[in-house]
Amino acid sequence: MLLPSIPENAMPALAPSVPSAPQRPPAEAVEAVLSGLAARFGNRVVTSKAVREQHANTTTWLPNQPPDAVVFPHSTEEVQDIVRLCARHRVPVIPYGTGTSLEGHVNAPFGGVSIDLREMNRVLAVHAEDLDCVVEPGITRKQLNEHLRDQGLFFPLDPGADASLGGMAATRCSGTNAVRYGTMKDVVLSLKVVLANGEVMTTSRRARKSSAGYDLTRLIVGSEGTLGVITELTLKLHGIPEAISSAVCPFQSIKGACDAVIATIQSGIPVARIEFMDEVQVRACNLYSKLSLRETPTLFLEFHGTEASVAEQAERFAEIAAAFGGGPSEWTTRPEERTRLWQARHDAYWAMVALRPGAKGFSTDVCVPISRLAECVVETRKDIDALGLVAPIVGHVGDGNFHVGPLVDMNNPAEIAAVEQFLERLVERALRMEGTCTGEHGVGQGKMKYLEAEHGAPALAAMRAIKLALDPLNLMNPGKIVAFA
Amino acid sequence: MLLPSIPENAMPALAPSVPSAPQRPPAEAVEAVLSGLAARFGNRVVTSKAVREQHANTTTWLPNQPPDAVVFPHSTEEVQDIVRLCARHRVPVIPYGTGTSLEGHVNAPFGGVSIDLREMNRVLAVHAEDLDCVVEPGITRKQLNEHLRDQGLFFPLDPGADASLGGMAATRCSGTNAVRYGTMKDVVLSLKVVLANGEVMTTSRRARKSSAGYDLTRLIVGSEGTLGVITELTLKLHGIPEAISSAVCPFQSIKGACDAVIATIQSGIPVARIEFMDEVQVRACNLYSKLSLRETPTLFLEFHGTEASVAEQAERFAEIAAAFGGGPSEWTTRPEERTRLWQARHDAYWAMVALRPGAKGFSTDVCVPISRLAECVVETRKDIDALGLVAPIVGHVGDGNFHVGPLVDMNNPAEIAAVEQFLERLVERALRMEGTCTGEHGVGQGKMKYLEAEHGAPALAAMRAIKLALDPLNLMNPGKIVAFA
Repeated sequence: MLLPSIPENAMPALAPSVPSAPQRPPAEAVEAVLSGLAARFGNRVVTSKAVREQHANTTTWLPNQPPDAVVFPHSTEEVQDIVRLCARHRVPVIPYGTGTSLEGHVNAPFGGVSIDLREMNRVLAVHAEDLDCVVEPGITRKQLNEHLRDQGLFFPLDPGADASLGGMAATRCSGTNAVRYGTMKDVVLSLKVVLANGEVMTTSRRARKSSAGYDLTRLIVGSEGTLGVITELTLKLHGIPEAISSAVCPFQSIKGACDAVIATIQSGIPVARIEFMDEVQVRACNLYSKLSLRETPTLFLEFHGTEASVAEQAERFAEIAAAFGGGPSEWTTRPEERTRLWQARHDAYWAMVALRPGAKGFSTDVCVPISRLAECVVETRKDIDALGLVAPIVGHVGDGNFHVGPLVDMNNPAEIAAVEQFLERLVERALRMEGTCTGEHGVGQGKMKYLEAEHGAPALAAMRAIKLALDPLNLMNPGKIVAFA
Repeated sequence: MLLPSIPENAMPALAPSVPSAPQRPPAEAVEAVLSGLAARFGNRVVTSKAVREQHANTTTWLPNQPPDAVVFPHSTEEVQDIVRLCARHRVPVIPYGTGTSLEGHVNAPFGGVSIDLREMNRVLAVHAEDLDCVVEPGITRKQLNEHLRDQGLFFPLDPGADASLGGMAATRCSGTNAVRYGTMKDVVLSLKVVLANGEVMTTSRRARKSSAGYDLTRLIVGSEGTLGVITELTLKLHGIPEAISSAVCPFQSIKGACDAVIATIQSGIPVARIEFMDEVQVRACNLYSKLSLRETPTLFLEFHGTEASVAEQAERFAEIAAAFGGGPSEWTTRPEERTRLWQARHDAYWAMVALRPGAKGFSTDVCVPISRLAECVVETRKDIDALGLVAPIVGHVGDGNFHVGPLVDMNNPAEIAAVEQFLERLVERALRMEGTCTGEHGVGQGKMKYLEAEHGAPALAAMRAIKLALDPLNLMNPGKIVAFA
């Protein structure tokens, strides 16, 4: 049989042709967009330096790269108009929630228009019988829970900051409750998304599950505005538990605390939160939140369920803690005490920053398989101590996820360089332990450089191909997650 | 200010150019592939008609479209070689697990090579401390659970059929335990995938969560082999529960049973399984599995937890059931009785088919928000009765998901036409109730025609764009999920 001669290089290319490296659009294009926006949105377009800078960068240590304008739409249709106008003139758009992201997600390295969604903050529907709701992206998690409380429902995810739901979906946020209730990938049922071409895509139906085609919902969750602008979310809810109890449990060592977490998860106790603070963070919280906790590695816990099941969970945890040198736990079921305790946990970032006035917090996170957690945290603590850094460790350890927040004197280039090297080692350590460079903060600009080491070249090429398929002109939050050099 | 004149049609196109309609590759191309495969795989390439037909179609009612050959690889590298060889000659590949899919997923409408993964069925690692494992795609769920049992672990998803894990991931399978443990999208941590260009992509790390870029894992789960061939899976596991109890609870009406399910889910009882059978299906199971259940709408339940929590759950369910005219329940905690009961549930498909010897079962599924479940099931039952069909209803009702299995005389064109219209009405009904055309069976060939009605044109265009970005020559299981006409 004669084989047809087909050259080896006839293999399909994975990605379509890559666009040229992105650059700032010409001034005339930006002018055209600003003038079009002004005509359409009047004083809902802001170009003052202060507002533009605020929209580029709030809690990140990366340099501020302000957009050319900020616009405040009121509807999906208005977002479509903004995206279409910008697309016509090849000007980037950057969606903006509350600006609490940590890796430069809302920076505008190529200028463009920041779409601030805060005025799209309505609850469009609550389906109590289906345990779901439909909201606009600008509503924050506290606003949503305020709205839901009377119906005995709550939205569980809690990243600490009072972030917007749109931003939480865009960064695949998780937070303190994720060990029980999952991350945003688990609680988003459907999204409405304005695509790069201005069309509106609905990613899924309101049914609890579906096998009807590619999972566009999960593709958008975590895409950080690079594939489209989220303008509506359908979210899973939960009934407020009959009983909630909280505890603070001190340990003698980091390893003891981490090992207790591992054993708790392995034993199947459905713990709702299990949070770790090292002694540096506990000291920071004592100072900032006026607490009097023992300054030692500590777990903060919460159990949800019926009265009986909460009591049973607490009892089983206490046995485990004791086996790893932990306890005695202080328990509370009183709502005001629980609130005070978790407020302190949520203020951990600010408490940390207050430890070294004038310094900037380089908040970062990694996540490893839980069997490697103790090892990873202990090695990280050693690295911090060897460098002489002030860097508290705090984490959602039930998922193997922890945060480190070196406090850096931004006037000291040697210190900045040392911290940058520390951050690289932290990521290398997590990757070596089969972990990820970010468990919940996202990629933004800060972690782009780690993606190839984490995922390998074929996965990164697939991400690039998907980005270009949905945003061929690279105008949706360009310069984040995947780069085109 | 003078606006630059940019034409309206400068809007970015969402999708890259669409390839011409797919067609069978020329005979010489197929010959070249067969000869290349024979040289590489020897007698692991099979071209007999019986084997090819068996690989095209087992449990579906759609016409059999056999591949040109079936090959049995032993490693990721061998799958790469097959994909590369086929790509070079523009010949399709169709991954094959156990052939238990229901919508023509493994048909080969344009010919090509069926990659049967049954010989890649090893457990590569069990990380008991992380509650995960790494397996090859050909292992079946029963084989995996057999392997895990000694370590006190189990993999919870259970679609009834003893499907392969690769196939379960490819179809975003769920089954009876999904109400508690989620679907394949929730239990897959990472996948190794051979892409259209022959490269191997790893979708994620082994950490429990990550925000590091696009969710490639969830993109591949449910993609039915159209984006690549899964050659390795990292899966979440669970500890075998301390206590398990099962119950059968008869109801006076379909509506009573469905309303009891809704109330159970809303009340937050963490039921592990809650399955519905209508009286026709109960009769079928009595006949097929030699049971003596009351022939009335019935719920099958299972509770997992500690002894105390299982007892508490059962008690709370009994109260709810009574309020909706259900009960008394028959309970069992004896493993052999539980097994017998769930075996009957799993044999529902075969029991159904046995109801009308010689007939073909048109098994289909839809899923609706749970608040619409009773209405949807009752309307469907009425439609069945009006048509005079034999069509049992059985379902994973805790998710709002149910199956209908009309038994059709394939020699009666009028009956086939009536059933096809019934299936269309069923999907229309589900979509009208904010549901999906398939909760767990997937799209395959059978449900492609519903995707635009379900998702809308922009979402379908996005799916097409993604397909072309990752498989520009449309060689990965072509003619499934998205079509290019």
